[in-house]
Amino acid sequence: MKLYSAHKAPNPRRVLMFLAEKGITDVEVVNLDLSAGDNLHEDFRRKNPMAKVPVLELDDGTCISECGAIYRYLEERVPEPALLGRTIMEKTLIEMWERRAELSFMLTVGHCFQHTTGFFKDRMTPIAAWGEESGLLARQFLPLLEEQLTGHDFVAGSEFSAADITVFCALEFAKLVGMRPDAEEFPALVAWYQGIKQRPSAAIF
Amino acid sequence: MKLYSAHKAPNPRRVLMFLAEKGITDVEVVNLDLSAGDNLHEDFRRKNPMAKVPVLELDDGTCISECGAIYRYLEERVPEPALLGRTIMEKTLIEMWERRAELSFMLTVGHCFQHTTGFFKDRMTPIAAWGEESGLLARQFLPLLEEQLTGHDFVAGSEFSAADITVFCALEFAKLVGMRPDAEEFPALVAWYQGIKQRPSAAIF
Repeated sequence: MKLYSAHKAPNPRRVLMFLAEKGITDVEVVNLDLSAGDNLHEDFRRKNPMAKVPVLELDDGTCISECGAIYRYLEERVPEPALLGRTIMEKTLIEMWERRAELSFMLTVGHCFQHTTGFFKDRMTPIAAWGEESGLLARQFLPLLEEQLTGHDFVAGSEFSAADITVFCALEFAKLVGMRPDAEEFPALVAWYQGIKQRPSAAIF
Repeated sequence: MKLYSAHKAPNPRRVLMFLAEKGITDVEVVNLDLSAGDNLHEDFRRKNPMAKVPVLELDDGTCISECGAIYRYLEERVPEPALLGRTIMEKTLIEMWERRAELSFMLTVGHCFQHTTGFFKDRMTPIAAWGEESGLLARQFLPLLEEQLTGHDFVAGSEFSAADITVFCALEFAKLVGMRPDAEEFPALVAWYQGIKQRPSAAIF
């Protein structure tokens, strides 16, 4: 398998962390230079018409994009350790928290970053007001995480899962826009973050 | 089970359509009045702290939000007809297309609607420029759908799936912002849409 990735990009990091937690090592990582527009070339668009990383290319040439779909493929191929749940309720609640983390946190942090920094202004229209608003929306997710992590060891319950990976990678990304949860305001979230940070999979980046 | 929904709301419609395709009828539908802010009340926030519909409440009181998570729960409980795939590759490609449809189409149509119409301006900050831009981003998804549906009967391949439901509900929602794919420009997409429109599940709304 080949993973099309990019140095320091938050969404590919989710897949790298997922692979590390699974102990899957037979993946060749191909790093694209997003600043140079490697992902916009026709040959990459044939792998993912959305022109985004990550893309997991299987040995038969099938290309899988969207982190959630790559998580699914890898979980089916290598079921243990389970990162998408074992029981019906584990599967459901991990999916709920993973989607919340993607839609209401990773995506809002991403919009804040793209629209306030103009990092991709050669290929999109940054709207500063939307960037600022997205930062506020991202911050609104923190109290929800604090409440959940006050009662649970991990984001979706009692076990580490893909939801922890998505939240962790979004929090790491959020540093780029100056968002770092304060330990006094968010003690459970910060304690959880420090625990995840110590996992070997958190260092692969 | 109870489904907290809202008349004419696009995301609850995804779940109503999924339930109909599964033939699941033992669900009490509770319609909230979003304009009146029913979803903002404390008792509803206990069911979903994101204050959004749909929410599926199980008989033991467990509340599931996020359409993808509700899809997952229902698929696990009632496996046939499969709407999230049977083989590994079906599961993976349905997840890929469903996430694409949610992130790059349903969400962009939603931002276009909310930020250009000011429908929820009592509870959010509409940014007209972002609304316009979101409309352009949503339109960029149409050629991708056209290409996919030129080669396949359904969005994720040869069988009807949750990905069709998400795309169909987003297209229906898009009418509210004046987006209707033209049959000359998007013949495969329009033919697919007309086929889905004839399914009994498309009429439940």
